[in-house]
Amino acid sequence: MSGASARRVDSSDELARAAAEWRARGARVVAVQGLGFVGTAVSAAFAAARGPEGAPRFLVLGVERADASGAARAAAIAAGRCPVRAPDPALDATIELAVRETGNLLTCAEPGPLALADAIVVDVPLDVEDGAPQTGPFVEALRDVGRHMREDALVLVETTVPVGACERWVRPALEEERAARGIRAPLRLAHAYERVTPGPRYLDSVRRFWRTLAADDAESRAAARELLDGVIDTEHFPLRELDCTRASELGKLLENAYRAVNIAFIHEWTRLAEAAGVDLWAVVESIRVRRGTHDNMRNPGFGVGGYCLPKDPLLADWSAREWWPGAVPLELSMHALRINAEMPLHTLAHVEALCPELQRAAVLVCGASYLPDVDDTRGSPTGRLADALRERGTRVLVHDPVVECWRGQPDLEVRRDLAGCLAECDGAVFAVAHSAYRALGVDDFRALRGDRCFVVDATNSIPDALAEELAARGVRVSGVGKGHWRRRGLHTGAR
Amino acid sequence: MSGASARRVDSSDELARAAAEWRARGARVVAVQGLGFVGTAVSAAFAAARGPEGAPRFLVLGVERADASGAARAAAIAAGRCPVRAPDPALDATIELAVRETGNLLTCAEPGPLALADAIVVDVPLDVEDGAPQTGPFVEALRDVGRHMREDALVLVETTVPVGACERWVRPALEEERAARGIRAPLRLAHAYERVTPGPRYLDSVRRFWRTLAADDAESRAAARELLDGVIDTEHFPLRELDCTRASELGKLLENAYRAVNIAFIHEWTRLAEAAGVDLWAVVESIRVRRGTHDNMRNPGFGVGGYCLPKDPLLADWSAREWWPGAVPLELSMHALRINAEMPLHTLAHVEALCPELQRAAVLVCGASYLPDVDDTRGSPTGRLADALRERGTRVLVHDPVVECWRGQPDLEVRRDLAGCLAECDGAVFAVAHSAYRALGVDDFRALRGDRCFVVDATNSIPDALAEELAARGVRVSGVGKGHWRRRGLHTGAR
Repeated sequence: MSGASARRVDSSDELARAAAEWRARGARVVAVQGLGFVGTAVSAAFAAARGPEGAPRFLVLGVERADASGAARAAAIAAGRCPVRAPDPALDATIELAVRETGNLLTCAEPGPLALADAIVVDVPLDVEDGAPQTGPFVEALRDVGRHMREDALVLVETTVPVGACERWVRPALEEERAARGIRAPLRLAHAYERVTPGPRYLDSVRRFWRTLAADDAESRAAARELLDGVIDTEHFPLRELDCTRASELGKLLENAYRAVNIAFIHEWTRLAEAAGVDLWAVVESIRVRRGTHDNMRNPGFGVGGYCLPKDPLLADWSAREWWPGAVPLELSMHALRINAEMPLHTLAHVEALCPELQRAAVLVCGASYLPDVDDTRGSPTGRLADALRERGTRVLVHDPVVECWRGQPDLEVRRDLAGCLAECDGAVFAVAHSAYRALGVDDFRALRGDRCFVVDATNSIPDALAEELAARGVRVSGVGKGHWRRRGLHTGAR
Repeated sequence: MSGASARRVDSSDELARAAAEWRARGARVVAVQGLGFVGTAVSAAFAAARGPEGAPRFLVLGVERADASGAARAAAIAAGRCPVRAPDPALDATIELAVRETGNLLTCAEPGPLALADAIVVDVPLDVEDGAPQTGPFVEALRDVGRHMREDALVLVETTVPVGACERWVRPALEEERAARGIRAPLRLAHAYERVTPGPRYLDSVRRFWRTLAADDAESRAAARELLDGVIDTEHFPLRELDCTRASELGKLLENAYRAVNIAFIHEWTRLAEAAGVDLWAVVESIRVRRGTHDNMRNPGFGVGGYCLPKDPLLADWSAREWWPGAVPLELSMHALRINAEMPLHTLAHVEALCPELQRAAVLVCGASYLPDVDDTRGSPTGRLADALRERGTRVLVHDPVVECWRGQPDLEVRRDLAGCLAECDGAVFAVAHSAYRALGVDDFRALRGDRCFVVDATNSIPDALAEELAARGVRVSGVGKGHWRRRGLHTGAR
């Protein structure tokens, strides 16, 4: 991602020339503002869209801020590389093709080229700190849009925002800037939240997945429908429409809060199952056969990470308290977030039960990302466990077969040599269900030695048979939701 | 259900003779203890089971307590009638056929005939009062089993019980009684919770649905599997096995708590959606397209009733607190139960907003059951609303197209004449999504007159177009989760 190997991003003149050329060929010009985890995938999806005769439907302008990280992202794409880590080869290939072959994906790190666009898709994130949205960068980005946009361009916001933000923040910011430019034409504004999912279907989580759009007027709604129809496989995933932007804003928060609550729900039952000697993983599996009512029941586990699940319910609660008299604080959802935030400490309790002298121990945590087989460490719960262990004086090693560097924990080296790590440690915690871990056999644990060595499995990475073998070799074994292991005495290292 | 039309229940001698005859023909003898909502359907399912050559697989002995209500249930079945109200014609037909034609469904109101059974299925309910299980009748029923059972009979408990009850209550009660009879043979005991669902698929909710079984020893597990294999369509719904009775006990409580929490979850968001002018029904519909993760998201609504959902999570919490050190109270689930219990008061708030002088008003509540199109009023949330209205001095009328009598509210007459009811009232509340209500047109509300007449729809029974028509006629209209009605001003009766 360094500038050295990157082609310079495109100049305003080059972009204007390209826009004129592509428009003459019948393509529409779409600007995507914000080239992070969402905007990158959205840009690629627009660039990959083809018309009936196979020609690109869109010229895509990826627009970033004029700061160092914005410039680096823009430069990465301009060099044909994906600026975010993603285990989806289709995303890399699509960006490379669009930059090097078709030439319909251009980037810049300045707002001026927004003026070239028929439609502007806003993918600038809105962060939350101390329970409140940090509006500054988001609103400033919208002011950039208002300062430069064509008066008839559609502004399609995909950012996850509090319920009411399009009316209270987005529209005023745009209209103030437009008014300052003397624009009186009605603003075309829509909200259509994204469901981008890091993982092997990263790009298809934009193109081949359900999408809901909303606007407060029929013309904006029609414009948004036409735009999305050009990039999403609406034959298989028909668009859904809602009658106001608030509804779409609420929908996104609701679906992620639902997930967060379902995760928290099972955590309380995890404690009961462990205490009662029950294999909760098997129980959940037996219940999930009830399709349509119970098949999305969550498994027990280690914790919740990522950018959305810990944050989105806070945005909803904030809007319920600040903007909507008559709404009540979302207590159940907030209760769930607290449970989820503390969840890794339950795995710590497993470790403490097997290894009481943590201040003299070295512990390997296996898995640094927040999703299996994905190199994405945003908000990873491994950080919470690692911090808590280090507070107790424990030496912490981290292994991950996918993650190479962990920006959020710069003082934790992420290693690839499992045997070497185990040889240095008293025990290991399986914190992420990477498929590489599911493939381990008892010999892979040979390096784990000592009278009180242990394995804690928080993610069902260790099958029952392996747990029995480990215990037979003197390894004390325990697992989240695996009450049956304790019932069978595996936590004592049944030599 | 009166004794007048009922054939006398069968005498012990008749039962013994029948058992010998059926056994000689190769049938097995199954006793079902408890002929309530579950035991009736289970008895019918066993009676309907056929062997490869079409002959009944089982002689079924329905065993009830020797009190008035037990005798009445036993007598109803002995007369060929279903003792519980059920809108499933297959259940009635099956009972009638088994009693009048094949003769393989017999009943009694005394425990002695339990001695005839190869297997005893326990469907005696375990009630909860003040958060604690009322063990008396349940344990007494098990003592009856222990006093009379053949020493090698399988005892299959289907009752929903706290986690650990088979070990702490069932086994000791049975073994004490068996020991008193000098029986030393190992007890065959299994737990396999039922998922009986009142409604049009009542009988098939036993025969053609998923079932999980569990036992603490392999022999009991095999016996339970063989028994259930004879009555359940295991070709399409293979049995699931768990390795201890606690796991099955926990599974039942978990799945109903899950449902309860998901209902409570959406209720908080209902308040936000209404305040923000959002149609939450449409938002939920747009999210439920996400199959496997979000398709079981619950709709907003009126409240939670029935026997299981308000009670089962309490049994789990009770066992977490009383029996399993290391477990934590199920705070999130308990929080959800409190939300669900209070939910009908949110509909009351809608009524109060449209009709401030409740002490001078008459209000019609449409729907008395706890499920649409089902004549089952157990724990119906309509009772909570009716009580709250009457506390405020409101005259309450109740309409229901299905329910004939409401035992839990003997002083509330349930009426069938909607127009007549409306003519006596200032407004109506739609509390149950009976399909008859969905078919109403604006003319059906003609009888609703007056300056301040109103309709509150808690169950999406009134489509948007009808709401607009009602408002155009001066009816003030409001709905649970229907923020868009308020945004459009329908609550003012937009004449």
